[in-house]
Amino acid sequence: GSDLLAQERARTTFSVNDLSVYLYGEEYLERQEKFLALIENEPAFDKSNRYFLGRTERFAGALRKDHALVKMSQEQKWTPEEFQHADILIDEPGPFGLHRGMFMPTLASQGNAEQHEKFLKPALRYEIIGCYAQTEIGHGSNVQGIETTATYIPETNEFEMHTPYLTACKWWIGGLGKAANHAVVMARLITNGKDFGPHAFCVPIRSMEDHSLLPGVMAGDIGPKFGYNTTDNGTMWFDHYRVPHISLLAKHSQVKPSTGEYIKPPNSKLSYGTMVLVRASLVGYARINLARAATIATRYSAVRRQFVDKDTPKKMGSQIVETPVLDYSMQQYRLFPIIAAAYACHFTSKEMMRLYFLNMKNMESGNFSLLADVHASSSGLKSLTTTMAAASIEECRRACGGHGFSSFSGLPLMLQDYAPNVTWEGDNYMISQQTGRYLFKAFRDLVAQRASGKFNTSQITNPTLAYLNSYLDNPDLKCPVTTPNQFFNPEIQLAAYGHRAAHIVAQIVHALDVEKRSWNSMLVDIYNASVAHCQLILVQNFILGIRGDMPQPEGVVAAVLPAAAKEALTDLSNLFALHQIHKQPGEFLTSGYLDANQVSMMGKAIMDLMEHKIRPNAVGLVDAFAFPDYHLNSALGRFDGKVYEAYTEMATREPINQTDVIEGYQQYIKPFTNPNNKQGKTMSARL
Amino acid sequence: GSDLLAQERARTTFSVNDLSVYLYGEEYLERQEKFLALIENEPAFDKSNRYFLGRTERFAGALRKDHALVKMSQEQKWTPEEFQHADILIDEPGPFGLHRGMFMPTLASQGNAEQHEKFLKPALRYEIIGCYAQTEIGHGSNVQGIETTATYIPETNEFEMHTPYLTACKWWIGGLGKAANHAVVMARLITNGKDFGPHAFCVPIRSMEDHSLLPGVMAGDIGPKFGYNTTDNGTMWFDHYRVPHISLLAKHSQVKPSTGEYIKPPNSKLSYGTMVLVRASLVGYARINLARAATIATRYSAVRRQFVDKDTPKKMGSQIVETPVLDYSMQQYRLFPIIAAAYACHFTSKEMMRLYFLNMKNMESGNFSLLADVHASSSGLKSLTTTMAAASIEECRRACGGHGFSSFSGLPLMLQDYAPNVTWEGDNYMISQQTGRYLFKAFRDLVAQRASGKFNTSQITNPTLAYLNSYLDNPDLKCPVTTPNQFFNPEIQLAAYGHRAAHIVAQIVHALDVEKRSWNSMLVDIYNASVAHCQLILVQNFILGIRGDMPQPEGVVAAVLPAAAKEALTDLSNLFALHQIHKQPGEFLTSGYLDANQVSMMGKAIMDLMEHKIRPNAVGLVDAFAFPDYHLNSALGRFDGKVYEAYTEMATREPINQTDVIEGYQQYIKPFTNPNNKQGKTMSARL
Ligand SMILES: Cc1cc2nc3c(=O)[nH]c(=O)nc-3n(C[C@H](O)[C@H](O)[C@H](O)COP(=O)(O)OP(=O)(O)OC[C@H]3O[C@@H](n4cnc5c(N)ncnc54)[C@H](O)[C@@H]3O)c2cc1C
Ligand SMILES: Cc1cc2nc3c(=O)[nH]c(=O)nc-3n(C[C@H](O)[C@H](O)[C@H](O)COP(=O)(O)OP(=O)(O)OC[C@H]3O[C@@H](n4cnc5c(N)ncnc54)[C@H](O)[C@@H]3O)c2cc1C
Repeated sequence: GSDLLAQERARTTFSVNDLSVYLYGEEYLERQEKFLALIENEPAFDKSNRYFLGRTERFAGALRKDHALVKMSQEQKWTPEEFQHADILIDEPGPFGLHRGMFMPTLASQGNAEQHEKFLKPALRYEIIGCYAQTEIGHGSNVQGIETTATYIPETNEFEMHTPYLTACKWWIGGLGKAANHAVVMARLITNGKDFGPHAFCVPIRSMEDHSLLPGVMAGDIGPKFGYNTTDNGTMWFDHYRVPHISLLAKHSQVKPSTGEYIKPPNSKLSYGTMVLVRASLVGYARINLARAATIATRYSAVRRQFVDKDTPKKMGSQIVETPVLDYSMQQYRLFPIIAAAYACHFTSKEMMRLYFLNMKNMESGNFSLLADVHASSSGLKSLTTTMAAASIEECRRACGGHGFSSFSGLPLMLQDYAPNVTWEGDNYMISQQTGRYLFKAFRDLVAQRASGKFNTSQITNPTLAYLNSYLDNPDLKCPVTTPNQFFNPEIQLAAYGHRAAHIVAQIVHALDVEKRSWNSMLVDIYNASVAHCQLILVQNFILGIRGDMPQPEGVVAAVLPAAAKEALTDLSNLFALHQIHKQPGEFLTSGYLDANQVSMMGKAIMDLMEHKIRPNAVGLVDAFAFPDYHLNSALGRFDGKVYEAYTEMATREPINQTDVIEGYQQYIKPFTNPNNKQGKTMSARL
Repeated sequence: GSDLLAQERARTTFSVNDLSVYLYGEEYLERQEKFLALIENEPAFDKSNRYFLGRTERFAGALRKDHALVKMSQEQKWTPEEFQHADILIDEPGPFGLHRGMFMPTLASQGNAEQHEKFLKPALRYEIIGCYAQTEIGHGSNVQGIETTATYIPETNEFEMHTPYLTACKWWIGGLGKAANHAVVMARLITNGKDFGPHAFCVPIRSMEDHSLLPGVMAGDIGPKFGYNTTDNGTMWFDHYRVPHISLLAKHSQVKPSTGEYIKPPNSKLSYGTMVLVRASLVGYARINLARAATIATRYSAVRRQFVDKDTPKKMGSQIVETPVLDYSMQQYRLFPIIAAAYACHFTSKEMMRLYFLNMKNMESGNFSLLADVHASSSGLKSLTTTMAAASIEECRRACGGHGFSSFSGLPLMLQDYAPNVTWEGDNYMISQQTGRYLFKAFRDLVAQRASGKFNTSQITNPTLAYLNSYLDNPDLKCPVTTPNQFFNPEIQLAAYGHRAAHIVAQIVHALDVEKRSWNSMLVDIYNASVAHCQLILVQNFILGIRGDMPQPEGVVAAVLPAAAKEALTDLSNLFALHQIHKQPGEFLTSGYLDANQVSMMGKAIMDLMEHKIRPNAVGLVDAFAFPDYHLNSALGRFDGKVYEAYTEMATREPINQTDVIEGYQQYIKPFTNPNNKQGKTMSARL
């Protein structure tokens, strides 16, 4: 194993460190070294038993881990970035996760100054531990449909929280099952007999003295799950539970004490900002998971040898040896696009964060011009990249053959813990409708402007309008490519993606507006439109990201990517753009841009690119992601390639191996195999 | 929930029972009733704790279950079919599974009469419990590359089994870890200094008296896995371990005692027959899993309501209510093709079993004419249908939204236990090469015959040659469809699939033979060829299966499908054929058969078909699969639709809910939230 990886690394055409620095910056990489030393030596962060334990023990371990993590962060005075870095390395969702991820951010964005004082400050010190209770057993996607009520009682200046039906009980709430003593609860605000719909309340749920549930609150864990079993997702229902007036988070909307008069929020668009942040950060999280899975599968595929490739047998000295499976073109076609996708998501997640901050700043000064486009893109990108990441982890798992099925590969648990990303923060199918709605409006507006005779290109204020406008300029555009290599031209790639996305949008708008088809009947096309739009964004940012043309946040100087690494990344960017077309050419063909001949030419271009350019750099390209072995926790993905040694060593620790003869033998096997209780030790009674 | 499902059932246009009888026959359905009564009352088969236990307890439970199952089968004198039926209902892979699935079948097919007496007879009584040890940690797909040796020792007339390297240790062997006392071991037969490659040996590995490992044998469990954790997949290595001459399974090849002379098998093709059987049965097993997952997700989607559909709001009396998610066209596009795929696999698995038996009979009389086609199709179908089933279980899981992530949906464990099907019995990518190899040979032969001038249609002896020949007759064939409804013509569907498959084959043969491209560089296309070929088979058998035109095994009279059910199935068959084209039209477009307009027309045809014809029958179509609630073990998929009641009830049994305050509170939460150990019980220290 070690030799093989050393050979791979010797072939790499660029400096892995250069690329890592370009991706993460020096600071991050140095911090990682420092943190590893700290974290690997803390028993609460030990991963060696992770794959062996049942849910009860794993949850107990996660609570211990979260406690130790908070303590360490307090002692070391970590910044939020540092905390997050440590959390990523430890890589285990825990009972305090939603406290940081949703409870405190909601308090921060929706609480007023008094509430910051009362709730947020102690929460920062973990005196209050909270969760975010929005979803009910009956309502998840449709937040407006939740049924928990919070009725204002003017007499006592309280709200009465109540769960009127079984379907109204809170469900899925991370941290609620066992750990939290407070909850942000989304409940229908009712005052003076009127229902103002869902509002956020911060309420205590467990005693601050002994952690028992408070009277009027029932809560518990919702049981075992596909993954995420180290978090206590919980259920809760209220029985006419009274909380004080201050519980209603009052930065945006308020209820006047005594009169119960409702004061509505000044601008409902403000809350979209946070959604953009969450969705953009999920793009970054997709990047991490794509990169991790690709690292494991790529390293292992360079070590794993299977069959002699008859046409080009591999030799070690004069001896014919088996071929590393990474040399099979099918394995490359499965794995290399995943490496490429990880890089694609890297650049797009950076760009989305920049846009988020820019938009927040704009909105503060009343400028909402970016919001719609950024919100639509972040929704579609959340949907697309999390779907990609989940599929890619599974593809990497399968690409490791049988051994990918072993927990020791690290891939099963990764898949299981990652899986909810396709569902939460907006189900990936449902959410694509938000992207669609924006695209159709943008298209209709643009068509109207162009028809008005008063159109000029200064009205093209964002990339979405730019590609829609190009399409309207020439809906019959054809791809001029006549040789495979021409597909490596980024302008051609962008034209293909832009034309295809705009064509789908145009077709849908026609179906809705002219054919008068219902929105519901168009959902499949709408989803495809969202995917097409977001694939274009990913392709675009990848190209800009390599060129160094990407806009930078204010005050940040763009890093420079050395030429050799730039070339290696350009290969990946080409693969990313072309592989998706080649694998699913349908819409590129029906949009009229490509023809059958070109698709077949593209196939050759891709196969050549992978074999000659990407294959030699494959291990280097995943090494550059800089995941320490501690993070990967994978026998197959080890940096040193000692796959079989690590794998067999892990198996010796399997609990049922701790006795030679299994406990159930006497009761369940012996009655068949030795019913007369023969003694002695022969090789076989039958021989 | 109950009302909603009752309404659905009232809308069904056909008799569910008619369809169930057509699928399974009366006998099967009656047996199921009888078995349920037996099985549900046996404590060892109780499923109520299945989702809560860790691996160690689940394995212990599976051993108990397998013991009880064997005992019951002995007491009730079950036939193999009856055993299998019970096993499917209980639905838990266990430590004795490979004894039945691989150990005994190998003894039966590769052992001689003496070996049947010595090994198979006691195995049938479970006095010997065995496993099938082929895979090594270093070799799975490449069976010829295994490294365990079995060297003939003429002096003592023994074989010496030995594991020369770490990579040669057996790995993944089901039942070996803890349960088996014998193993069929694939090892390189070495005699008189010559290596004759892998041969099967039946060897004792644990003492028949006390189940301890025999001297010279080391074995144990390989540890936790993504799924299949109730089976003790094991590892084993030999240290110059001597076994008697009779251990070499000698029906086909033998070693002469004393001289050590090797006698090779008369016909190496004979062993392909068994492979066809295993692969054909995996198509049937894919069917079960597709159908189960579809049953859960379809029933739940009829009960789950989310959002009011603005264009066509749903009413209960005069009140507007939320829309069942099954009414959303996207949900239909995701689920209905899975219902259709389950039916498609049903007919194809029946047909493959018929062909298997026919081929076995033919081969006995020296007629090998069917073998190549049947072997190639069964390989490709194993690959295609298991890939489809694994993807569909996950799609169904996601289609249940958050609740699909709960173990109580039944889908996570189903997915985890099903997952190895894409890897074992031939990795799904690797195995497609076998299908490809046959298709290219068939194509080349056909081209040569046609060119010879001596070709006549009597040489078209199977459906593969038929579609290849049609293509060669007219490679520029165009689809004549001009209105959406014309796509419901089965001849058009078959022409589309046939033309596309043949076109891919023709292109690959050209690349290999004319452009001289290497086999390795063509693996992606080869995989696509295998998929195209097998999708055609599925479409074909679905059409024949409904018409009642399907050939029947000798002596079997075709059942008759009543008209109403026939119409409902025809809708599904149309969906099955068209959905795959619509979702991935690329190859249908590049083959030249379809154009962009037609694909868009097809989209409308599909959406209409789903909304108007399939939607009303959706629940009926899954009810017809006749899975009892005991089998499904799913809160979401219950027949009675009482989803939320069952789901919340299951959560109350979560072990960590058994105490109000979690154990870790004192140590891991209280130090933050109540460091000064305040007593009493206030709502919140902060309020
Ligand atoms: C592990 C995990 C942790 C979670 N943690 C939290 C938490 O801490 N706090 C919290 O409040 N929530 C939490 N959730 C809940 C999560 O936010 C919801 O599950 C999610 O919003 C999806 O909603 P749902 O489950 O109701 O799905 P549903 O809306 O019921 O979706 C079911 C199906 O219907 C489809 N569908 C729904 N609406 C439409 C439509 N309009 N058009 C077409 N199709 C539609 C969906 O695509 C899906 O296929 C968590 C969930 C999970 C799995
Ligand atoms: C749950 C489970 C139970 C099992 N039970 C048993 C058992 O009871 N007895 C037993 O003997 N075995 C058993 N196996 C082993 C199983 O048969 C092997 O895992 C399977 O054959 C795949 O082989 P592999 O793991 O060596 O994969 P590999 O061959 O190492 O595959 C790794 C990757 O290389 C690719 N690849 C390999 N060769 C080629 C090629 N020529 N061209 C292109 N790509 C290629 C594959 O597609 C895959 O992506 C079990 C496995 C599992 C997961």
